[in-house]
Amino acid sequence: MKLNKKDLLGIKDISVEEINFILETADSFLEISTREIKKVPTLRGKTIINLFYEASTRTRTSFEIAAKRLSADTINISASTSSVAKGETLIDTARNLEAMNPDIIVIRHSAAGAPHLLASQVKQSIINAGDGAHEHPTQALLDMMTIKEKKGKINGLKIAIIGDIAHSRVARSNIYGLTKMGAQITVAGPATMLPRDIEQMGIKVYDKMQEAITGADVIMMLRIQLEREKQNIFPSLREYSQRFCLNRGNIALAKKDVIVMHPGPINRGVEISPDIADDLTQSVILDQVNKGVAVRMALLFLLAGGHE
Amino acid sequence: MKLNKKDLLGIKDISVEEINFILETADSFLEISTREIKKVPTLRGKTIINLFYEASTRTRTSFEIAAKRLSADTINISASTSSVAKGETLIDTARNLEAMNPDIIVIRHSAAGAPHLLASQVKQSIINAGDGAHEHPTQALLDMMTIKEKKGKINGLKIAIIGDIAHSRVARSNIYGLTKMGAQITVAGPATMLPRDIEQMGIKVYDKMQEAITGADVIMMLRIQLEREKQNIFPSLREYSQRFCLNRGNIALAKKDVIVMHPGPINRGVEISPDIADDLTQSVILDQVNKGVAVRMALLFLLAGGHE
Amino acid sequence: MKLNKKDLLGIKDISVEEINFILETADSFLEISTREIKKVPTLRGKTIINLFYEASTRTRTSFEIAAKRLSADTINISASTSSVAKGETLIDTARNLEAMNPDIIVIRHSAAGAPHLLASQVKQSIINAGDGAHEHPTQALLDMMTIKEKKGKINGLKIAIIGDIAHSRVARSNIYGLTKMGAQITVAGPATMLPRDIEQMGIKVYDKMQEAITGADVIMMLRIQLEREKQNIFPSLREYSQRFCLNRGNIALAKKDVIVMHPGPINRGVEISPDIADDLTQSVILDQVNKGVAVRMALLFLLAGGHE
Repeated sequence: MKLNKKDLLGIKDISVEEINFILETADSFLEISTREIKKVPTLRGKTIINLFYEASTRTRTSFEIAAKRLSADTINISASTSSVAKGETLIDTARNLEAMNPDIIVIRHSAAGAPHLLASQVKQSIINAGDGAHEHPTQALLDMMTIKEKKGKINGLKIAIIGDIAHSRVARSNIYGLTKMGAQITVAGPATMLPRDIEQMGIKVYDKMQEAITGADVIMMLRIQLEREKQNIFPSLREYSQRFCLNRGNIALAKKDVIVMHPGPINRGVEISPDIADDLTQSVILDQVNKGVAVRMALLFLLAGGHE
Repeated sequence: MKLNKKDLLGIKDISVEEINFILETADSFLEISTREIKKVPTLRGKTIINLFYEASTRTRTSFEIAAKRLSADTINISASTSSVAKGETLIDTARNLEAMNPDIIVIRHSAAGAPHLLASQVKQSIINAGDGAHEHPTQALLDMMTIKEKKGKINGLKIAIIGDIAHSRVARSNIYGLTKMGAQITVAGPATMLPRDIEQMGIKVYDKMQEAITGADVIMMLRIQLEREKQNIFPSLREYSQRFCLNRGNIALAKKDVIVMHPGPINRGVEISPDIADDLTQSVILDQVNKGVAVRMALLFLLAGGHE
Repeated sequence: MKLNKKDLLGIKDISVEEINFILETADSFLEISTREIKKVPTLRGKTIINLFYEASTRTRTSFEIAAKRLSADTINISASTSSVAKGETLIDTARNLEAMNPDIIVIRHSAAGAPHLLASQVKQSIINAGDGAHEHPTQALLDMMTIKEKKGKINGLKIAIIGDIAHSRVARSNIYGLTKMGAQITVAGPATMLPRDIEQMGIKVYDKMQEAITGADVIMMLRIQLEREKQNIFPSLREYSQRFCLNRGNIALAKKDVIVMHPGPINRGVEISPDIADDLTQSVILDQVNKGVAVRMALLFLLAGGHE
């Protein structure tokens, strides 16, 4: 089988078969990162550019490690030290990079749709590493991989997503993906953080976190953007955490074997209590990070033309 | 043949034979970037340091890709994250790097002459990646390579350079190089942006862009530094673009088969109209970027001791 | 023999035998950096993360070059472009990195004890690349390596350390190391820059630099942090340099064959006069930098499980 796509732009546009194929490929790469010599020559002589217009540790590092473990050459470009500052348009930057013959451009950008624009303009493969409040497809893939590993399946699971749904690219990509895979999704968050059209997507929306997580197999907590407090999107961090922080009390409403997810970086005591975050019988937050490298290895491999 | 030079500091100091030799070597490297596996082991075990005191996307990325395709190890140092901030002198920084046994130091610096100072102080090869308003020799080499490919020769061509000649290291290096190679150069720009002594270099200077580009085989547009507007070096961007923007109207004065060049990043609608920049029957702006990787591969190879 | 340690956190906690073993291993790596092909496959497939919360040129570059000459993959994370800015705790950052299966994390942090905290929390090897005013063990190791090479031994030497002893991690690590190795240490500096408990460590403390360096085999000048002037820790740079600048006059008090050391970056004319810094019959400042790469190669090798 082969991934018949030039780009990975979002979860909305890929099929269940493609998701499963990516996750199976990722599974087969998982073991490489545990070897004594964590490197295979698969992408030797390929050039991967990480073009990050927003600060990032984990996503950029994860892509860079994934590329290096496949023996690709990696080039990091961050907006702050680049001629982006000189006012060049995104498309001109991309066309210039294209002229240097990279194989894949990984882009993170604050504007929704930026990766799609690039993909339509350059012949290289584009991977969306997060675009505004739109999509973060590799995060959703690593989340699905983690759920499949822990629960054996996604179909039929009850999955609660809690927090700032409206502004979260992680939530959006996961809602597309998990719905396709047959999960039943509930969400909860402050009214100002819930998208209006979300019930049309087959999602159950609750005011109270407690209702959303009752009986859940999976609870996915979202990071609250601390800077939103100043924008008056929610009253105060204190009130937010009283209503939407996952803790020992409310987690008891979920299934006994519930798993707790978070895309990181976590705000301890705001959206998740430290004891929940650190309880490795329930928290799979670090498993998510671990799967992230394998998912990115799989995508780099598949988009660079690899197939089994 | 061999390049009998320790450093590449400027085009002023190299001969026509050396330019031709570098361009021929670059030609032979061009094909590597189009291979399935874009990498040769030529510089394995060599250390290339990119020491950038000014922000840059394309030049730094181009050098880094060039080095990696030759299997060299690359180290990026940018002023903002380095101990440069601690007030160390340039020479002390360079001597410290020298003590770590790199093979080549690529330097960009806002001070004219900085690479020459380094070259006199350290035993490693220095490549000037742009020094103040002085020289940008790799840009001129990739420009000459592009012209030779598109026109078959440089000798006898009429080449117009338009814009801020006085403050442009790209213009200066190209004037040295193209003159040596036998081209006839005309320039135009605002009076405050024309160096006084330029006619002594055998260059024809015009007030009006139209006069400079009439009958031209090549038009090289320079980037206007937007920050110069505040320095009152020219009246306004609007006036500048009315007088010096290359567009469908004035380009008709050039030869039918004129090619349009620009070192990038371009200011669309300021020094070049978008339709001209994007018309690939005339614009060779992305060819220039593409040749840049090959020229830098050639220089890294030749200065690191390679010969055919 | 083998280094039976997971981490290198400080010189305080390692034995004379361990120091000697690291220095001997470093000696054996010194030659690699002088080869035509400066690279050995020893750490192929290992991942080294440089996690720098403070700006650095020489230390980060030295670790990166060391790793690359051993064929390890290197990932640079600097606080300014990372999600550190998003308020994640140090431990959460480290655990996230841990989940990506690196082999060694090299950390520089402004907080004393940060590397120790990491070492207790993650399974990977941690190397302290400088923590606050606490320790900078790789600097002390390269200093000891330089002294051994130049003097043939450390035991019995008289070594003067001059400057801001209290706030210097370089001084602290060297005092631990050189004392263990049998040197007799004298220090001098402004009263506000001398730690109170230092005489209990067997160190002779002098007000006057002249007394401390009289008869010295080695003079180690410390960098004065220029920002301390504003904190009123010393009266003025001018007065500091009148009292504590090493120059042609006062160096005559030391042994004839004294060597002069400095961890860099140097403040010319403040703590060291330019003619002393540049006199290669006495100054070994650049030898220190050169040894730094070998010491770091040795540590990466030994902590990644290598043994002879």
